[in-house]
Amino acid sequence: FCKLSYLFINFALGSRYVSKTATKSVSEFEYDAPSMKTAVPGPKSQELLRQLGEIQNVGAVHFFCNYEESRGNYLVDVDGNRMLDVYTQISSIPIGYNHPALMKVMTNPNNVSTFVNRPALGILPPENFPDKLIESLLSIAPSGMRRVQTMACGSCSNENAFKTMFIWYRERGYANPSEHEVDTCMINQSPGCPDLSILSFMGAFHGRTLGCLATTHSKAIHKLDIPSFDWPIAPFPKLQYPLEEFVRENAQEEARCLEEVEDLIVKWRQKGKPVAGIVIEPIQAEGGDNHASPDFFSKLRNIARKHGCAFHVDEVQTGGGTTGKFWGHEHWGLDDPADVVSFSKKLLTGGYYHRDELKPDKPYRIFNTWMGDPSKNLFLSEVLNVIRRENLLEVVTRSGKALLQGLYTLQTQYPHILSRARGQGTFCAIDACNDATRDSIMIKARNKGLFMGSCGEKTIRFRPALVFKEYHVHQLLNILNDVLAEHK
Amino acid sequence: FCKLSYLFINFALGSRYVSKTATKSVSEFEYDAPSMKTAVPGPKSQELLRQLGEIQNVGAVHFFCNYEESRGNYLVDVDGNRMLDVYTQISSIPIGYNHPALMKVMTNPNNVSTFVNRPALGILPPENFPDKLIESLLSIAPSGMRRVQTMACGSCSNENAFKTMFIWYRERGYANPSEHEVDTCMINQSPGCPDLSILSFMGAFHGRTLGCLATTHSKAIHKLDIPSFDWPIAPFPKLQYPLEEFVRENAQEEARCLEEVEDLIVKWRQKGKPVAGIVIEPIQAEGGDNHASPDFFSKLRNIARKHGCAFHVDEVQTGGGTTGKFWGHEHWGLDDPADVVSFSKKLLTGGYYHRDELKPDKPYRIFNTWMGDPSKNLFLSEVLNVIRRENLLEVVTRSGKALLQGLYTLQTQYPHILSRARGQGTFCAIDACNDATRDSIMIKARNKGLFMGSCGEKTIRFRPALVFKEYHVHQLLNILNDVLAEHK
Repeated sequence: FCKLSYLFINFALGSRYVSKTATKSVSEFEYDAPSMKTAVPGPKSQELLRQLGEIQNVGAVHFFCNYEESRGNYLVDVDGNRMLDVYTQISSIPIGYNHPALMKVMTNPNNVSTFVNRPALGILPPENFPDKLIESLLSIAPSGMRRVQTMACGSCSNENAFKTMFIWYRERGYANPSEHEVDTCMINQSPGCPDLSILSFMGAFHGRTLGCLATTHSKAIHKLDIPSFDWPIAPFPKLQYPLEEFVRENAQEEARCLEEVEDLIVKWRQKGKPVAGIVIEPIQAEGGDNHASPDFFSKLRNIARKHGCAFHVDEVQTGGGTTGKFWGHEHWGLDDPADVVSFSKKLLTGGYYHRDELKPDKPYRIFNTWMGDPSKNLFLSEVLNVIRRENLLEVVTRSGKALLQGLYTLQTQYPHILSRARGQGTFCAIDACNDATRDSIMIKARNKGLFMGSCGEKTIRFRPALVFKEYHVHQLLNILNDVLAEHK
Repeated sequence: FCKLSYLFINFALGSRYVSKTATKSVSEFEYDAPSMKTAVPGPKSQELLRQLGEIQNVGAVHFFCNYEESRGNYLVDVDGNRMLDVYTQISSIPIGYNHPALMKVMTNPNNVSTFVNRPALGILPPENFPDKLIESLLSIAPSGMRRVQTMACGSCSNENAFKTMFIWYRERGYANPSEHEVDTCMINQSPGCPDLSILSFMGAFHGRTLGCLATTHSKAIHKLDIPSFDWPIAPFPKLQYPLEEFVRENAQEEARCLEEVEDLIVKWRQKGKPVAGIVIEPIQAEGGDNHASPDFFSKLRNIARKHGCAFHVDEVQTGGGTTGKFWGHEHWGLDDPADVVSFSKKLLTGGYYHRDELKPDKPYRIFNTWMGDPSKNLFLSEVLNVIRRENLLEVVTRSGKALLQGLYTLQTQYPHILSRARGQGTFCAIDACNDATRDSIMIKARNKGLFMGSCGEKTIRFRPALVFKEYHVHQLLNILNDVLAEHK
């Protein structure tokens, strides 16, 4: 049966790539296919779940992993199940498990000290810190940006990006704070702590610390019971698919959202809580893989400029090559796409770039103990070398096309189950008819050796590593087809 | 001259420990003394400052470091200067630079995969995760706590500790949220996002992300221009020194502060912003090394219980052995000292412990991509082994006594310059007569090979590693005495 479905998919996709990629992508360190021994989670995972449950809430744990045995695109669990992993630790493993280039970083004796002595980067950086920033983060800097600040994680990156925008917004027009501002800020009151706001979008996810959480609107469970800020929230376009059939409707929908953005900026200014910055993801990920057109982002960027708001593009999930370009916003084709770009996940270190105008005027305004971790920068340098050497952005573009084409075929074949296949590079998604069906498909696929992620209400999201080749695309589609055929 | 002052200090301290510790503490991997080649920052540091200044604000950078050449208590800079480091990367290096035990963690091939494949711990933990938590963090758990959540840094730890307290506070009395609560939380509004508050203290430092920053009140530069929450802020006792001369006044001062805490809790409840939790440091560090008595903390803990507020002890700087006990709150002698204890810095991983009652009811309420970093847990396990094997809590207690005794002697000798020597273990501080004098002493000491930190308005803080022996105490006191003698 598996064989039959494989042939079917080959036919549907056009079989011309199959034999070529099949030989090419079985590199010396990777496995060639999933291999399942038990249902997942297996007995060993279940025993460990019980143990960890005494210490933490384990309701979100899928299974326990054997990371030593995992290779490339294949994640091995403690029960010996080997799965094709297209979720990659919530999209944070850039070049697969145990990539030989990263193993080498570990065994290079020159690197030991960087791991053992974590510095307070803001006061006592290591000798090679400027060089490492130049060869890693600055070599991939977004258009127009020469300044970068590392942070430990995505939430800290966005929190500090927001602070950078607040500081920038307030500094126009005066140099030093008044005594009254100094006094009031110490007790959380205006004007020292001013009523400024960040405009975000319904469906957005920018993190879960209290500042970030005020701009996150993807799922209630993230926000319930946590105090928040009265900041404006605009609608994000709800596009209808297939796009080519709804050109007019989608353009109207985007225009409606942009109009609402301008209304909110005016309204919050009148409220005395002016919008210092607008934050947006190039593709809303956690919120359900919601896309908008380059035209929408271009117009939004202009609105930000017109109203004197900083424009912050959150590339925590879209950054690092997964869309086929290094940054998701490069698809907009703008010379001046953003004032701030934040990142984390596939870049291994968190942080954000910003334009010169947004540099803080004084030290200790953007500051914490560690300000990132140079050992993550070491890995990032090597990841970038691998991306260049192995032309991984081309691989992503090629695999992404095959994946999306395969998803189109599946939704044509199973229209009562699947719809709205969409994606950029391998950053792809498809909707199930409801959440129960989506969850059931994911569990069945997992038991056949395909580990996927979910997002939004009923969406399956694909977040493979950059080393995900067409060979792996076909494995994915075969398993998904098998599951759907049983569902039919 | 140096020799003379050395002898003087030996005499002042009683010379009985000197010869013994001098032979004992020169371990095979450490240097035996500071060694200065240039003023600090030297020419190489200055050139690197210029380079990094093109990328980041470098106003807080002291100098650039050669971490490879640093050993134990001695930090080596890029100009070949070797300094006795009693600031240790803002108190975050637990057992000195390049400790052989930590180097071994790096060269153990079994550990490579933990560094190379950073997991999303909340969904796909590694096989050894429960065991590692038990042998590291749970082996040092504060009294009454069996649950721990790791996080990447101190700010994320406190942010999530606050969220844990908010969730706990709201869950009393009802099980599932209403539709109205679900709807309102998505747009940042009450009742879904309720107007709850955290009570903090003037002079406190709990981090710089927006939730933490609303409880931080140490320096204006941290808070200026950043929106905040209307949360209650109580006075922290301002003790008069020497403590034995102001017993009555200090008891009155502590009573005044506790009364104010209760008033604020009542007032904020009436305002409709009830206090879900109280957060406090055992010693206010960034705010100026402000101490309070065990009696104060014991009564505060009772006030929290009486008013139904969770009690959160922030041990980010006091935790990890530096006070002579593993946790600063152990000095209070309570069976039931806290509901939540957060940590980071010397523990290398961030996180927080909490009582069973505070465990979140559902998954994904306390969650982010990485939820900590198992490679930091590996180092922590080894640090704990070293602390036990080398009896470092005893070392800290012994060195701390010698340090504080030396500071008492210095302030007796230089009463117009120094006052208010105070400390617990090696977590010591002394005040200068003003900030300019404090800064001048620190720069002169640095040029003689002693690197110290500052805090508050005019305080010098001592934050040596746990391997700081009496031998090093005497080096510190000698240099400080030389600097003060020149000042005289």
